[in-house]
Amino acid sequence: MKTRIRTLLAGGASGRECVVAGWVRSVRAAKEVAFVTLNDGSDMAGLQVVAGKDLANFDPVCRLGTGAALRVHGTLVESPAAGQQWELHATNVEIVGEADDAYPLQKKRHTFEYLRTIAHLRPRTNTLGAVFRLRSHLAQAVHRFFAERDFLYAHTPIITASDCEGAGELFRVTTLDAGAPPDFDQDFFGQRTGLTVSGQLEGELFALAFSDIYTFGPTFRAENSNTPRHAAEFWMIEPEMAFADLADDAELAEEFIRYLCRFSLEECADDMAFFDKHIEKGLVERIRQVAEADFVRMDYGEAIERLQRSGTAFSFPVEWGLDLQTEHERYLSEQVVGGPVFILNYPKEIKAFYMRQNNDGRTVAAMDLLVPKVGEIIGGSQREERLDRLTARMTEMGVSQEPLWWYLDSRRWGSCPHAGFGLGFERLVMYLTGMDNIRDVIPFPRTPRHAEF
Amino acid sequence: MKTRIRTLLAGGASGRECVVAGWVRSVRAAKEVAFVTLNDGSDMAGLQVVAGKDLANFDPVCRLGTGAALRVHGTLVESPAAGQQWELHATNVEIVGEADDAYPLQKKRHTFEYLRTIAHLRPRTNTLGAVFRLRSHLAQAVHRFFAERDFLYAHTPIITASDCEGAGELFRVTTLDAGAPPDFDQDFFGQRTGLTVSGQLEGELFALAFSDIYTFGPTFRAENSNTPRHAAEFWMIEPEMAFADLADDAELAEEFIRYLCRFSLEECADDMAFFDKHIEKGLVERIRQVAEADFVRMDYGEAIERLQRSGTAFSFPVEWGLDLQTEHERYLSEQVVGGPVFILNYPKEIKAFYMRQNNDGRTVAAMDLLVPKVGEIIGGSQREERLDRLTARMTEMGVSQEPLWWYLDSRRWGSCPHAGFGLGFERLVMYLTGMDNIRDVIPFPRTPRHAEF
Repeated sequence: MKTRIRTLLAGGASGRECVVAGWVRSVRAAKEVAFVTLNDGSDMAGLQVVAGKDLANFDPVCRLGTGAALRVHGTLVESPAAGQQWELHATNVEIVGEADDAYPLQKKRHTFEYLRTIAHLRPRTNTLGAVFRLRSHLAQAVHRFFAERDFLYAHTPIITASDCEGAGELFRVTTLDAGAPPDFDQDFFGQRTGLTVSGQLEGELFALAFSDIYTFGPTFRAENSNTPRHAAEFWMIEPEMAFADLADDAELAEEFIRYLCRFSLEECADDMAFFDKHIEKGLVERIRQVAEADFVRMDYGEAIERLQRSGTAFSFPVEWGLDLQTEHERYLSEQVVGGPVFILNYPKEIKAFYMRQNNDGRTVAAMDLLVPKVGEIIGGSQREERLDRLTARMTEMGVSQEPLWWYLDSRRWGSCPHAGFGLGFERLVMYLTGMDNIRDVIPFPRTPRHAEF
Repeated sequence: MKTRIRTLLAGGASGRECVVAGWVRSVRAAKEVAFVTLNDGSDMAGLQVVAGKDLANFDPVCRLGTGAALRVHGTLVESPAAGQQWELHATNVEIVGEADDAYPLQKKRHTFEYLRTIAHLRPRTNTLGAVFRLRSHLAQAVHRFFAERDFLYAHTPIITASDCEGAGELFRVTTLDAGAPPDFDQDFFGQRTGLTVSGQLEGELFALAFSDIYTFGPTFRAENSNTPRHAAEFWMIEPEMAFADLADDAELAEEFIRYLCRFSLEECADDMAFFDKHIEKGLVERIRQVAEADFVRMDYGEAIERLQRSGTAFSFPVEWGLDLQTEHERYLSEQVVGGPVFILNYPKEIKAFYMRQNNDGRTVAAMDLLVPKVGEIIGGSQREERLDRLTARMTEMGVSQEPLWWYLDSRRWGSCPHAGFGLGFERLVMYLTGMDNIRDVIPFPRTPRHAEF
């Protein structure tokens, strides 16, 4: 029965006999002894295996290539070497799977670009290993956060007919032969269907039955944009609360971000230290500041004034009614506030039809959370719960009501104020790791002309 | 600040003042007092609100319709009524959202068929409320189970090019205009892509870096079958372990199923009691038996012999080399074993190319877990880790190697024995609730000609 290396090191006891299994990161062979660094993915450091000349297969062990799979029986002893508390004195080294010189991950620095071409192997590298460990722990922490607060986890549909209204950003889902006449009545669902861009509308239906709910699932954009921050397939977290307003929404978002920052620092300390050292200097301090900060609330109107008064020459215009660009968002967060800030109550013209209309007639109860370094990390709103206001706005904006009859129904019976937000999970992972390209925080990224693996 | 009803009742204290918010299930109005059953989705029972004549809006409260949304301030007191420990004496009842007689969920029995046509409202019913609460708790428990065992959660891709080899069960994903010539080079990904049917192959890649991993995400089948057990979109859980064989795989599956059965009984007791009473008599006992059972292991060969010797007239033939049908699976579990049973080592001809070939030359290291009432609930296997055996089998079965080059690479360097299984999440929810139709355990089910909401 094997023990994971992380578990073994956490409960280390001198003289303990154990079995570990993993992959060779490096071998240093001398005449009498070979030092093998073994990694099983459970942590960054792995375990130093000391193989002596008395082993029957000492010679093959000395010739082991990076990437070979081993199962090792041995005794844990305190290590005389610097930088590690324990090492494993092998009594038996079973070479389970060889790796030769053609192995694409020889011990040297590889560029992230190169590693993307071997996405099937890159989880075995230090950086990608740490990224995907953090991603996993974070995802589990997301569920824990909501479970502790009694939020219901709802699986909203991936294939959807309802927001396929000719939007260019939708992938179409079909079983019709390519090139066949576009007779959607003959298609699998008897209508035109696509991949969801958000579970919010269905999430609202669930919030109006269970009060507090969240979704956490894949969403899609068929945007032909090759930027470091866009992927065609990504995971989104969308909580929704009934009997809640924009202030409640911001409170939840603040609590959520603080929770995840603290979680990363406390429960993924080794991997975070690695990112701090190798990916972004000062990362840990940046995250700690967010975790400890008071999140400021600022009206959109005030934000515009502050930007205009700043005397800074921005590339994009600053004017009431225009959306904020990343440069503005970062300025607000980094220069004006010096920390996380919610911008509240945006002009209705730049926001979606479902956002609650404020009494001023020109803004809606929308919010964005801006953080240093990246700008917007969360977008949310209180939803328009008044049927007449909602349908009027849909008419103004040319949103067809008929396909959303079920959404409107939710405002017909037992409607109530409710609010929620969306957090792109990959953006969060990028923020917490310092990784610059979304392709390097998704196991097998999907982008224009890329669907390998 | 509102309190969830479940939380309130769990920490009930006489005289406690509180605010609750939810939806009216029923109103009984007398001259001096009205009894309003309020439900906020946090539990089955809800809370009885006692509204006295002294309330300014007593008359409107008496006329409240089922489904109306309320926010109630009041004092918690011990209830003199049978069947409930607490009731809330209202000091203020705010009618947040009305519901009139046209509300489709008037207090009476509705068929599940009817409720499917109002899937946007059915979470507000007792049965569907309980189903989706259990589904949520179970999903969170799945993550907890794996997190406790240090399994890494991997998000495998939804859009995939690699298993699109003309399989009829794949949904195609495209941004080409319907009816446009089938020039896949012009498509978003520059090739033909579809929706994944399993994350296993990518999961294996992650297991070969992190040792123990799992996926939990949506999978798809474009099967045109209208049965109570098939949906086009469903969630699947797929663990994968490196340095593990078929015995380890069965052990994990047994532990997993036992964990989830116990979890349901212990942490969702009220909802389980409801299912036992209203959906399937004896459900709780059935689940308890599985939770406490020793899971039997039986070879496929022996299973065939047992079936042949049974003297039972099955609809489908029983013969070495043929797959087991549900009637056989149920007979084995219910009559032969009287509990859960793993059938091991199936004929290679009826199993997938990636399963490990046994030394007998005619079976593979596959397993199915059969349970009373439904038959197969888990399918898994040890994977073929030997490159030469794997490619030989692919050639025999006509599986093209070129699109799976990355999968083969994982056997080229650092290959090792590994094993995993798949569990359809909806099947599990059906099993634990007694619900007979998969459409009633998915929030918004997708089946042929149905993609509403």
